Amino acid sequence: MNSTIRAYIAGFLDGDGSIFFQIVRRKDYKRKFQIRTSISFYQKTDNSENLLWFKKILKVGYIRHRKTGISDYTIVEPKEVQRILKLLQPHVRFKKKQVKLGLKILMKLKKVKSNKDFLEACALVDQFKELNYSKKRTVTSEVVKMTLTP
Amino acid sequence: MNSTIRAYIAGFLDGDGSIFFQIVRRKDYKRKFQIRTSISFYQKTDNSENLLWFKKILKVGYIRHRKTGISDYTIVEPKEVQRILKLLQPHVRFKKKQVKLGLKILMKLKKVKSNKDFLEACALVDQFKELNYSKKRTVTSEVVKMTLTP
Repeated sequence: MNSTIRAYIAGFLDGDGSIFFQIVRRKDYKRKFQIRTSISFYQKTDNSENLLWFKKILKVGYIRHRKTGISDYTIVEPKEVQRILKLLQPHVRFKKKQVKLGLKILMKLKKVKSNKDFLEACALVDQFKELNYSKKRTVTSEVVKMTLTP
Repeated sequence: MNSTIRAYIAGFLDGDGSIFFQIVRRKDYKRKFQIRTSISFYQKTDNSENLLWFKKILKVGYIRHRKTGISDYTIVEPKEVQRILKLLQPHVRFKKKQVKLGLKILMKLKKVKSNKDFLEACALVDQFKELNYSKKRTVTSEVVKMTLTP
């Protein structure tokens, strides 16, 4: 993928895209929680055929049409999110901090061997939420800590 | 301006920007109407410092903070809109038709010598509105025609 294509996608992401990390409860998971990630690109559903171009270029992910009239193209596989963040990193301007911290979380997740490692990753997700100005009530690393600490 | 910068701005414009043409009444104008144009880039006001980067690169225009919590960086001078559309044209993907037709309108406007020429430009603005799926009640070329035809 050439650098003008990568710069174009980075510009679109800065304008009308999002990078997302979230801690969700998973009773059946070893560590009781999962760190979920995604990259999304948005368009009005009327123009959602535009999103097919991203899918063709990035080769993964899926397109959803929401009832609000907005469609999104979203990638959730951590390995693919990591690949795409690395591709875009040199070109992203306004979401630079999100990309850097996102890659740090994904690196960390790959090496999780203990609850302590996992908690460290969760603490980075807390930091990430601060960057996104998220005010939604969500699971913080503190909640994970209280659950995992005997 | 190198091509990765231009591609980045084109991506941002396709994601969270707009190109706009509008016919407005101007009693004091020779032809009673003006064709207004603009290019805008949007950000939440919380992140509006990001828009300064566009202003630094494109060197014209101004930044406004709206009460809705959205800020925009907007260029309205037809000569500058034309310059910027030309810069971005090779990289824009989803707004390709808007850029092409916008440049056609701006070229036409430069050569207006008669009411007939002006009406032709107004008819192109009508076409442009179709591209933008604008449903707002605005002045159409038909209204201009009725005003200018004796």
